[in-house]
Amino acid sequence: MDYVYGPGKNHLFVPGPVNIPEPVIRAMNRNNEDYRSPAIPAMTKTLLEDVKKIFKTTTGTPFMFPTTGTGAWESALTNTLSPGDRIVSFLIGQFSLLWIDQQQRLKFNVDVVESEWGQGANLDILAEKLAADHAHTIKAICIVHNETATGVTNNLATVRKLLDHYRHPALLLVDGVSSICALDFRMDEWGVDVALTGSQKALSLPTGIGIVCASPKALEASKSAKSVRVFFDWNDYLKFYKLGTFWPYTPSIQLLYGLRAALDLIFEEGLDNVIARHSRLGTATRLAVEAWGLKNCTQKEEWYSDTVTAVLVPAHIDSTEIVKRAWKRYNLSLGLGLNKVAGKVFRIGHLGNLNELQLLGCLAGVEMILKDVGYPVTLGSGVAAACAYLQNNIPMIPSRI
Amino acid sequence: MDYVYGPGKNHLFVPGPVNIPEPVIRAMNRNNEDYRSPAIPAMTKTLLEDVKKIFKTTTGTPFMFPTTGTGAWESALTNTLSPGDRIVSFLIGQFSLLWIDQQQRLKFNVDVVESEWGQGANLDILAEKLAADHAHTIKAICIVHNETATGVTNNLATVRKLLDHYRHPALLLVDGVSSICALDFRMDEWGVDVALTGSQKALSLPTGIGIVCASPKALEASKSAKSVRVFFDWNDYLKFYKLGTFWPYTPSIQLLYGLRAALDLIFEEGLDNVIARHSRLGTATRLAVEAWGLKNCTQKEEWYSDTVTAVLVPAHIDSTEIVKRAWKRYNLSLGLGLNKVAGKVFRIGHLGNLNELQLLGCLAGVEMILKDVGYPVTLGSGVAAACAYLQNNIPMIPSRI
Amino acid sequence: MDYVYGPGKNHLFVPGPVNIPEPVIRAMNRNNEDYRSPAIPAMTKTLLEDVKKIFKTTTGTPFMFPTTGTGAWESALTNTLSPGDRIVSFLIGQFSLLWIDQQQRLKFNVDVVESEWGQGANLDILAEKLAADHAHTIKAICIVHNETATGVTNNLATVRKLLDHYRHPALLLVDGVSSICALDFRMDEWGVDVALTGSQKALSLPTGIGIVCASPKALEASKSAKSVRVFFDWNDYLKFYKLGTFWPYTPSIQLLYGLRAALDLIFEEGLDNVIARHSRLGTATRLAVEAWGLKNCTQKEEWYSDTVTAVLVPAHIDSTEIVKRAWKRYNLSLGLGLNKVAGKVFRIGHLGNLNELQLLGCLAGVEMILKDVGYPVTLGSGVAAACAYLQNNIPMIPSRI
Amino acid sequence: MDYVYGPGKNHLFVPGPVNIPEPVIRAMNRNNEDYRSPAIPAMTKTLLEDVKKIFKTTTGTPFMFPTTGTGAWESALTNTLSPGDRIVSFLIGQFSLLWIDQQQRLKFNVDVVESEWGQGANLDILAEKLAADHAHTIKAICIVHNETATGVTNNLATVRKLLDHYRHPALLLVDGVSSICALDFRMDEWGVDVALTGSQKALSLPTGIGIVCASPKALEASKSAKSVRVFFDWNDYLKFYKLGTFWPYTPSIQLLYGLRAALDLIFEEGLDNVIARHSRLGTATRLAVEAWGLKNCTQKEEWYSDTVTAVLVPAHIDSTEIVKRAWKRYNLSLGLGLNKVAGKVFRIGHLGNLNELQLLGCLAGVEMILKDVGYPVTLGSGVAAACAYLQNNIPMIPSRI
Repeated sequence: MDYVYGPGKNHLFVPGPVNIPEPVIRAMNRNNEDYRSPAIPAMTKTLLEDVKKIFKTTTGTPFMFPTTGTGAWESALTNTLSPGDRIVSFLIGQFSLLWIDQQQRLKFNVDVVESEWGQGANLDILAEKLAADHAHTIKAICIVHNETATGVTNNLATVRKLLDHYRHPALLLVDGVSSICALDFRMDEWGVDVALTGSQKALSLPTGIGIVCASPKALEASKSAKSVRVFFDWNDYLKFYKLGTFWPYTPSIQLLYGLRAALDLIFEEGLDNVIARHSRLGTATRLAVEAWGLKNCTQKEEWYSDTVTAVLVPAHIDSTEIVKRAWKRYNLSLGLGLNKVAGKVFRIGHLGNLNELQLLGCLAGVEMILKDVGYPVTLGSGVAAACAYLQNNIPMIPSRI
Repeated sequence: MDYVYGPGKNHLFVPGPVNIPEPVIRAMNRNNEDYRSPAIPAMTKTLLEDVKKIFKTTTGTPFMFPTTGTGAWESALTNTLSPGDRIVSFLIGQFSLLWIDQQQRLKFNVDVVESEWGQGANLDILAEKLAADHAHTIKAICIVHNETATGVTNNLATVRKLLDHYRHPALLLVDGVSSICALDFRMDEWGVDVALTGSQKALSLPTGIGIVCASPKALEASKSAKSVRVFFDWNDYLKFYKLGTFWPYTPSIQLLYGLRAALDLIFEEGLDNVIARHSRLGTATRLAVEAWGLKNCTQKEEWYSDTVTAVLVPAHIDSTEIVKRAWKRYNLSLGLGLNKVAGKVFRIGHLGNLNELQLLGCLAGVEMILKDVGYPVTLGSGVAAACAYLQNNIPMIPSRI
Repeated sequence: MDYVYGPGKNHLFVPGPVNIPEPVIRAMNRNNEDYRSPAIPAMTKTLLEDVKKIFKTTTGTPFMFPTTGTGAWESALTNTLSPGDRIVSFLIGQFSLLWIDQQQRLKFNVDVVESEWGQGANLDILAEKLAADHAHTIKAICIVHNETATGVTNNLATVRKLLDHYRHPALLLVDGVSSICALDFRMDEWGVDVALTGSQKALSLPTGIGIVCASPKALEASKSAKSVRVFFDWNDYLKFYKLGTFWPYTPSIQLLYGLRAALDLIFEEGLDNVIARHSRLGTATRLAVEAWGLKNCTQKEEWYSDTVTAVLVPAHIDSTEIVKRAWKRYNLSLGLGLNKVAGKVFRIGHLGNLNELQLLGCLAGVEMILKDVGYPVTLGSGVAAACAYLQNNIPMIPSRI
Repeated sequence: MDYVYGPGKNHLFVPGPVNIPEPVIRAMNRNNEDYRSPAIPAMTKTLLEDVKKIFKTTTGTPFMFPTTGTGAWESALTNTLSPGDRIVSFLIGQFSLLWIDQQQRLKFNVDVVESEWGQGANLDILAEKLAADHAHTIKAICIVHNETATGVTNNLATVRKLLDHYRHPALLLVDGVSSICALDFRMDEWGVDVALTGSQKALSLPTGIGIVCASPKALEASKSAKSVRVFFDWNDYLKFYKLGTFWPYTPSIQLLYGLRAALDLIFEEGLDNVIARHSRLGTATRLAVEAWGLKNCTQKEEWYSDTVTAVLVPAHIDSTEIVKRAWKRYNLSLGLGLNKVAGKVFRIGHLGNLNELQLLGCLAGVEMILKDVGYPVTLGSGVAAACAYLQNNIPMIPSRI
């Protein structure tokens, strides 16, 4: 039943889907249930309440769509905008590119602000556009918090500041797919109108829930948004929320129990501790990359991502070969370079339910692969650099002190 | 972690989500994997090939969307039709009603043919409409093969005959959610253009895959269909099929392995044996209902459904009370009456990976509940009627002979 | 990976191993752990405390051996007795026979009190022996609380009364394998010195833990017992109990978590409610047998077992054929007749995590099988009799009211 | 339900119980079954046949006891020997000590040959004893193939040579608990009479099966062996083997399916490849230890163990502190020093279903812990040494080439 078995654990370091913790796998190991019995609504109620915490919102309304991140994008856009609406969107890598493609196919008037891949969103241009938009033709700003293809984290606080500075009423729609629950994300504080993530990222679940969280302003916008939508319509959910049955169509029972378990683990660890752990993993990875004498695809420190690191390889090396060898020889799954950076970068995903020793095993593996493909790395150098930092910074596990 | 635990197994007899066989639960009990490694495409290839068998098609192209039946509906419609297109759609119960609601919200010009709930689609009216439509303004016929709310199975062969008789080019779109893999369904033979089902029905999986199968004619139609779509767009899938990577966005690894296991079980039993088993379960249920002196919501034998039986209760009894007691006292999950038949019917789902003794336990439970709510049933009468039939008709389990 | 798959659930009605509840299966679905870390001792401590509750003892000392019931027997005997010791032991069926065989091979002087199979222990003879034993040569009374082969429950309270009446110091060793956690069992009240059970019986776990509970008097006896023992020695456990590490050798991590979950479910339902549920299941089964016109192997009502019913078949029918057909045609697992009653009885196990509708499915199946093999049963008769009783006696599920 | 949860995977590097591969966890994720149905004997038959392969025997008879290694020891001894029999047994560490303790408590006349902990069995003394034993008073040689406490592997081929040289008929009883299925073990070639292992070691299962394999000579010996035994008696098994039902008492259904899956994985990888993988893991670990400037508890290369490495720490460091920190800070489980080497060594278990990157994560962790406790290790040094070797020696995963 297993395809291409290899001995020992698979070392899963793609930036999604990520490792699922055992307690979550256990929680999902179950038969179906009637979702119209009192049990599922009772559980759903706790989920809707608790899921807001990972967005750091008290005023938002969450929707848990049986879909992927792509579906969550579509839900965010179609519920708040009408065909022809002008939106400003930042193209900084493959996932922002795909979102823009979706925006265009959904018939919005997309004002694309492009950056070189490896750079963050160009907020200077945003400032200019906002300054110039006295008529408020811009209906929404669409921005990916963390571009998974290049390992670039955008500064959302600044986006909010600019909107406030220019008193611009545009909605702020944020793709938090590879950030929420791993990076510092503050929906209410940053005035994010729609934020979204997917279950298979930092929540460490299987794929299958696209969580979309709408601010009161976004909900208001949904009343007049003319984009055609049915499956992704918030309004159907809101109707069932009022009825207390919560689901306009059948949810995955297993994923609901899994989400319950995943949130319980996150709260047990503490969301801020989870974020701090990701910071440690990100820093350790970057120190290793530096020790190997390689460059981070992310061009400036301000954009460094704590969930994924895209590593540039020397011109004579094909990064695809690195990813292939990782899987074929070391049972290690790394992320490919995509589109413009195909062959040029490989990616180490370090998000989700992951600890430092898991990462160090991966880094040791990368060193051997680099040597395999002819890059003159000093074996142990990256691990040493990472350990030097980690040994000073890993906290005791609170439950075990 | 479990809500409202009761001793022993839950007896799950809602018409979806249904019981998942243990080997399928086992197959899904796993960590995430990189869906871009060679393993997942290799498995996906076998799934796409094998899933066609349950539609009985060799010429169709299947799409396995990470969504529910509602999403599968949306995909079927938006890929083949343009806003304003005239479609004929049959309203015979809650699920056909919901599909029609979706059709209207997607801006099609829906020509609704309504029947009394408990009756099948009115094909005489279809004949009239086709006869009158010399200009071929009707672009599609939308029909639910098995209406889950009333337990009515429509005659698709007749629909095809009518279309052929009038040489009408309208597309034939079929909701097979509670039929495919349980009832006799023949996509190619009946000239169905789009057929769809959901994983949590007769496939006996968790919710999360909406399978849509398109005929060559439907694929052709998709090239000119102007409905806006991105997440549900077949074209994105077709692109990735060509690349051999298959997935435009992240699938659920667990559901893919689950589908592999589910199909393996179905093929081991034999699809025709699966269908015969459903026929036995349906017949046995109807015999019990008759023995209880109750009426089937389905008004004529030609429409009897082998996947769900909606049982009419006497006027002085509230069927909702029956469903509540079933759960609260007997750990039995029955289906509620919906919308027009709320309070008037309760439903016994008998589809998916289910055997006769499971059904008999359910029927015995229903007898006790009927007595609980004051209906003068003769205890044992329904079980006796069902057993008299089953004892003559259950085959030996082939692997155990 | 599955042998001889059949559609739907297997209906498991052998008197062990029994159905495992889903939450327990989930709890065991895990990797190994270091049993010397602080986690496992912490959990073991709660288990040792809680397991005493199912024996209804506060003064006993439990031992959880990685073994089966047969091993638990051996532990009970070798820790309390010396070769040559005279013990009185009751032969009333296959399992008491096997225990006696073990007692003899362990070199005790076994005074066997035999009853016809289907009768309980002959306590009149016990009374005589005790009365005559002024020299207290009898060191132990060995009795099976519930003989699984014939469905006979012995009266332990009477045994205790006799011992007290004759002020006899013999140890009272009880096999509670198919009784504890299902039948009323009172270690302290009845002055049981060693009681034992196996995890795969009413605890509803996999095979693998033999739980032996020793009274202070039994512990005292273990100090001078000369039977050779190492693996089954209580003393090794007691040493590790003092150290707080609890395990002289490696336990099954999975079974410990499973036992934790199993006990949690039992306490959630309430041990007395669990016992009452078994009484309902036993009564319902016997009513069905009566309605079928068949005889219970158990000859008197006072010995009726609420965990297993052995059904006598007419002389011209081979009960083995019934068990074979159950499995081959109905995916139903019944218990064979063993040894003296082979071919003459089949057994319905109704113990563990089981509810009434599960049992009714089994009873309906048995009716069909009886018809299959030529017994003129009235289909529905047993189910009707069982339902008539159950419908008046099943309580609401407390968590769902 | 989880005790002392920590984020990410637990890094399990105790020398047992070891990591269970996911396919095996899946295979065991199931309800109980009737072990008297045809399915379980059919599967058992394949297991008994296949399990012989991991002992490299064609003439041996395997027994799969529901017990631990300690129980397997007891079975090996009591089935082949009689109280008072003289046996030669080697004391070289904690596990040989425990076995000797058992031998003595089972009333054998144990001729103990002691070595300093860290050394192998003193075979010179064995030679002397054999040479002197013209009367063949030595009935058995008992030897631990791999002493788990000190990481010492004994040379069994030499033991056989000595026995042959002196034409001595003593039985050769081997504890293969931490060797079989990981180290090169050749039951037939080395004339081993009884070999045994436990499921939680290199087979990578939960605890619960003690596998004992008996040569024809051992089976012959069992006919006259007078040690009292019931639960562990081979003869009961042999009776049921003949009947084709295989089990004298209830086995763990879950472990049987687990063993089936475990063997399938081992044969898929190839037993010799499994052994080669352990050799790589052992070599890599020893290179790391050397690079750290620490000593291996094992005093000579000829005794180096490829399944466990016991690392000596400098006198001023308490190795217990290392193990505690590993668990409390790094979610890493290492083995404690036991008895004579308590506080002096910590142990890295590197056996079972484990790959190189897992080991490297562990080694990186150990480096940080060494620094934590004040040992002046060069971070990265051990990993570098291990990688330098591994990068040249890891083969491609055959299924992925």
